Amino acid sequence: MDRFRMFFQHFQSNSESVMNGICLLLAAVTVKLYSSFDFNCPCLARYNALYGLGLLLTPPLALFLCGLLLNRQSVVMVEEWRRPVGHRRKDLGIIRYMCSSVLQRAMVAPLVWILLALLDGKCFVCAFSNSVDPGKFLDSANMTSSQVQLFLAKVPCKEDELVRDSPARKAVSRYLRCLSQAIGWSITLFLIVVAFLARCLRPCFDQTVFLQRRYWSNYVDLEQKLFDETCCEHARDFAHRCVLHFFASMQSELWVRGLHRDPADQS
Amino acid sequence: MDRFRMFFQHFQSNSESVMNGICLLLAAVTVKLYSSFDFNCPCLARYNALYGLGLLLTPPLALFLCGLLLNRQSVVMVEEWRRPVGHRRKDLGIIRYMCSSVLQRAMVAPLVWILLALLDGKCFVCAFSNSVDPGKFLDSANMTSSQVQLFLAKVPCKEDELVRDSPARKAVSRYLRCLSQAIGWSITLFLIVVAFLARCLRPCFDQTVFLQRRYWSNYVDLEQKLFDETCCEHARDFAHRCVLHFFASMQSELWVRGLHRDPADQS
Amino acid sequence: MDRFRMFFQHFQSNSESVMNGICLLLAAVTVKLYSSFDFNCPCLARYNALYGLGLLLTPPLALFLCGLLLNRQSVVMVEEWRRPVGHRRKDLGIIRYMCSSVLQRAMVAPLVWILLALLDGKCFVCAFSNSVDPGKFLDSANMTSSQVQLFLAKVPCKEDELVRDSPARKAVSRYLRCLSQAIGWSITLFLIVVAFLARCLRPCFDQTVFLQRRYWSNYVDLEQKLFDETCCEHARDFAHRCVLHFFASMQSELWVRGLHRDPADQS
Repeated sequence: MDRFRMFFQHFQSNSESVMNGICLLLAAVTVKLYSSFDFNCPCLARYNALYGLGLLLTPPLALFLCGLLLNRQSVVMVEEWRRPVGHRRKDLGIIRYMCSSVLQRAMVAPLVWILLALLDGKCFVCAFSNSVDPGKFLDSANMTSSQVQLFLAKVPCKEDELVRDSPARKAVSRYLRCLSQAIGWSITLFLIVVAFLARCLRPCFDQTVFLQRRYWSNYVDLEQKLFDETCCEHARDFAHRCVLHFFASMQSELWVRGLHRDPADQS
Repeated sequence: MDRFRMFFQHFQSNSESVMNGICLLLAAVTVKLYSSFDFNCPCLARYNALYGLGLLLTPPLALFLCGLLLNRQSVVMVEEWRRPVGHRRKDLGIIRYMCSSVLQRAMVAPLVWILLALLDGKCFVCAFSNSVDPGKFLDSANMTSSQVQLFLAKVPCKEDELVRDSPARKAVSRYLRCLSQAIGWSITLFLIVVAFLARCLRPCFDQTVFLQRRYWSNYVDLEQKLFDETCCEHARDFAHRCVLHFFASMQSELWVRGLHRDPADQS
Repeated sequence: MDRFRMFFQHFQSNSESVMNGICLLLAAVTVKLYSSFDFNCPCLARYNALYGLGLLLTPPLALFLCGLLLNRQSVVMVEEWRRPVGHRRKDLGIIRYMCSSVLQRAMVAPLVWILLALLDGKCFVCAFSNSVDPGKFLDSANMTSSQVQLFLAKVPCKEDELVRDSPARKAVSRYLRCLSQAIGWSITLFLIVVAFLARCLRPCFDQTVFLQRRYWSNYVDLEQKLFDETCCEHARDFAHRCVLHFFASMQSELWVRGLHRDPADQS
């Protein structure tokens, strides 16, 4: 039990470990979700962009809100913000620190989805196949404008009979996927540079203030957990006494039937 | 034993952990159930919508009621509502709190089924293939109305000889699946936004009342568990005494036969 | 050892946990049994319905009786019913409570089998393929009635050369499986609704009587277990004394032969 208790206490004191774990789990779920999701472009000019961009941006939004929901620090933060001022004065810096910590963790899973989608390229091809300049790839002399639009809308569906085995379809698709991957890698690089600067250059500025805010943010979190636990124990103790009181009044009945146990008889 | 006992006590005090566990388990069972269920559209114009919508809505209803059944707080809630008023006055707020907590947990599994079915799209294609405007996808000039209806009813069965290798079937199917996925993601996003607002904005209102209700709902649950346990112990104690009483009257027989054990003889 | 003893006592006092465990185990065995059973329709008009309905109904009957057999409360119940009236008066309500509790647990595994068979649909297709109205699916103009019956009897055997690659076979099979699944889900829903009403609305009526019956049903069970245990201990004690008595009378013989052990001789 001690082992379990110490393990439990370690995670209880180290909310950050738990939150990092949740953050990684959510990212893993995102990868699994993306890979098992059956992407299915409608190949209709009016719906392509809507569907492609929708799949590029709706799930990240959902994942971002999920990240905020699953992180109990986001609730702790709001409660710290709204609590009545007692002997411990409110410090906006602590709330800012918690807010940035929550936001950073919540943004991991959405970014994973967006980068996966961009590096994979299907969403991008579906969304922007109609926006390609047809002059580059098609011999559009012998096609009307609506025929060109129909052809471009069919580009993401490689099994469609209109575009099957068409070299122009392959060229457009290649071009768009290439663009999508380029954008994906650029965003990756940019994010990593920003994270690097934020983490490695931060100790150069106000390290003491940072450590204090981290201490207090941890304190607020722990105080709430301990309050919850003590509530449970208190309720348990109270209920125990009430139930014993009820049964104590039943002992008299046993006494009457001659089945009472003598105080001395401890068989 | 202490380890087992403390582990047990931890889960006994933390009904919420157990219920969250059950809720997650039910959601996992739902995913497993959906993935192992053999979806089988009848492809008959009259039955398609019935079957598709039935599979979209009947299992969630069953799962919702299962969620209520498996959550012991739903029984605790009804008992708290019906109990005679004693020294502890009844508070409708506690019952409301328990009710909302039970409903929230019971709705997870059904929503998982509905979202899975919508993102997968098979149910939706089966249910609404007859409701598609045929003018968009079919060259309906050389088909009678009943032929068009027959064709649309066969859309979900891609192995059927009437529609095999038909590009129109693929287009209708793509369009419907796309719509189904869009609806699925919209519902997901909506639900997550609602959950986010409910969880993160709640501390801004009546946090004290909420904490009190949570305390009392936990207390009611614990009181009932302890009552059950004490009942078991009481019955055990009572039975022990009755059985000993019966054997004590048998000792005289042994005494008579000269096989009695001397009080001093401790072999 | 203490750990084992307390664990044992916990389960001994909580007969319900054990019975629920047996009930779940039996349900899991049923699932395993069904999935590993090699269903094999005879495809002969006279035997199809017999085989299909037999497999739908015989194993559940066996499982139901197994459930009654494995549940020790069913024996306790009969003993409670037949016991001589002593100081504790007989209450038919307790026997009714035990009976309903035993029946509920025994019915879980059979229902799991029936629902699995209906959702899978093979039994149903085999049993009712001859009862389908042939006019809906077959072009029966150029077939005699016996040919139609032969065709329908072959529907469950998709490898049979008469019906292989026949779209009509697929349509009949799809229709029947769809019906079977619809019936399965309807039964599931109905049962869950009944269970929900029975469980959640029960506290509204006679909760005190219910708790008392539960207490006494638990008491009867415990009394029997303790009686068995005390019998064992008593028999052990009695046998011990008899054996010692025998050896004590042998000491005199050893004494006589001069082979007695001196109290000081500690070889």
